[in-house]
Amino acid sequence: MAIQIFITGGTIAKCYDEIKGELVFDAEHLTKMLSEGRATVSVDIETLMLKDSLDIDDVDREIIYQSCISTEAEKILILHGTDTMVETAAKLSEIRGKTIVLTGAMVPFAFKGSDALFNIGTAMGALGGALAEGVYLAMNGQIFIYNNVYKDKERGEFCALS
Amino acid sequence: MAIQIFITGGTIAKCYDEIKGELVFDAEHLTKMLSEGRATVSVDIETLMLKDSLDIDDVDREIIYQSCISTEAEKILILHGTDTMVETAAKLSEIRGKTIVLTGAMVPFAFKGSDALFNIGTAMGALGGALAEGVYLAMNGQIFIYNNVYKDKERGEFCALS
Amino acid sequence: MAIQIFITGGTIAKCYDEIKGELVFDAEHLTKMLSEGRATVSVDIETLMLKDSLDIDDVDREIIYQSCISTEAEKILILHGTDTMVETAAKLSEIRGKTIVLTGAMVPFAFKGSDALFNIGTAMGALGGALAEGVYLAMNGQIFIYNNVYKDKERGEFCALS
Amino acid sequence: MAIQIFITGGTIAKCYDEIKGELVFDAEHLTKMLSEGRATVSVDIETLMLKDSLDIDDVDREIIYQSCISTEAEKILILHGTDTMVETAAKLSEIRGKTIVLTGAMVPFAFKGSDALFNIGTAMGALGGALAEGVYLAMNGQIFIYNNVYKDKERGEFCALS
Repeated sequence: MAIQIFITGGTIAKCYDEIKGELVFDAEHLTKMLSEGRATVSVDIETLMLKDSLDIDDVDREIIYQSCISTEAEKILILHGTDTMVETAAKLSEIRGKTIVLTGAMVPFAFKGSDALFNIGTAMGALGGALAEGVYLAMNGQIFIYNNVYKDKERGEFCALS
Repeated sequence: MAIQIFITGGTIAKCYDEIKGELVFDAEHLTKMLSEGRATVSVDIETLMLKDSLDIDDVDREIIYQSCISTEAEKILILHGTDTMVETAAKLSEIRGKTIVLTGAMVPFAFKGSDALFNIGTAMGALGGALAEGVYLAMNGQIFIYNNVYKDKERGEFCALS
Repeated sequence: MAIQIFITGGTIAKCYDEIKGELVFDAEHLTKMLSEGRATVSVDIETLMLKDSLDIDDVDREIIYQSCISTEAEKILILHGTDTMVETAAKLSEIRGKTIVLTGAMVPFAFKGSDALFNIGTAMGALGGALAEGVYLAMNGQIFIYNNVYKDKERGEFCALS
Repeated sequence: MAIQIFITGGTIAKCYDEIKGELVFDAEHLTKMLSEGRATVSVDIETLMLKDSLDIDDVDREIIYQSCISTEAEKILILHGTDTMVETAAKLSEIRGKTIVLTGAMVPFAFKGSDALFNIGTAMGALGGALAEGVYLAMNGQIFIYNNVYKDKERGEFCALS
């Protein structure tokens, strides 16, 4: 069965609008990354919203939560901004019978030297392996359980709590 | 415990020597990729050889095999050319008590649009998850068991046998 | 004699601050570009300011003007945001005995697919050739005289007036 | 009038064939570069051959020579491998009434960190300026007259003879 991918926005999705002269969301970022990764895994992609994660509110989290419940897929990948990725993961932790992995990026895919492609790979590798049901973050080359991770905002890295 | 990474060469490791005007091996390719991926996972890196996988012979495979046995690490990542990745994986399949993931790339990391960073991420995600002991390939966003995969050389993709 | 390069900021100079999560000025952008271009031409580099060109005011233009007059160099390259590049060029047009070329970019050098490296090359090629004294813009692969060019902001291109 | 561009091959034109696993010529390299440079200058593009410059022989040089004479354009840009760029330039030096600029790259455009885009820009800037008739090389950010330049093959740079 296909992996369900939900797009919510975040840094990973930003590109440069050369007419406006500012960062905007690129709805095609995931498609470009899966293509660059030569990914052949079957995926269903749905864009739930395109927001910075600091702007993701309770209503948005409810939409993400309901979407995870509604999809028939047992494996779910969520692209999300890093600043509140842990909060959204906590909200999803009540869901049973599904393996949910959240990822994002510190630098937009559109930039040279971005971590985005690596992170998407990390998430796909975790979902393609034998990860038990539950909610996880895939960042910095690691798989963190949702309740044992925080973002060190000074270093720009995710770390285990214990 | 750290993940043991063995470098053997392959397409992923190639860069352009602008004086010679040809592709050569870049011993620093993995370090660059882990840096670009902002990977914080603890790794031990050892370069066993720098060869195209079509040049990997029985002697080389024995070196890879013995290295996997000798390392204390239980999680092992092997960077390897794609053409004979499946053969090397088969050789390693007798090893017990370790989780071994092989990956590589269709296009060198040094090229724009390379799949290398994605594939390293996929392998790290598989190793960071709950993959059982055994030998796997991480390519095309998927985790293949060593005896259920082949490289479709016309399409340049890895596919499951069944 | 060396080419004098004055940095004033603009889109070309932006990079992504992954801690702050926003575009900031990268003081090293020109050095990186000259290195990527394998430029061997002798240059003196001075950063006059790091500003979006919409924020370049009369005081800034006076600084740029005086700097062009003060330098002993007869060939001057100015990196400048595109939105008011034409205004700054007009201000410099009274200067005699110097060849001044302004360039910038529609997309920061830090982005994949940026025009920055091409534009710096265009400016260097114009200065390396036999351009007469005067003030010029090097954008879109063309050399425009300062009083025969405007920026078409809808198309994001510089065009000749006549 | 449009600039005539003749493609002859060289390092600049190479890309990676991921099925064959080797460098091959990419006939679209120039189009991609002009697009990335947001070039709006009018050009006529003709591919004369796709060869390493070490393989450019007298017959090829005659073709290039005749093509430069035949075109109505007065401004000509030739993309050429660096190893024998100087030889081809010498062959073209008898041509009168035209401004001919040769360029190429040390690293293919397909690689990260390539000098290709910069060099094309340099050539366009030289042609867009007031360069007198004659034959020139645009490399390393400089404009060299055909008979005052050599390639330092150890350093991978073009240098003036005097």
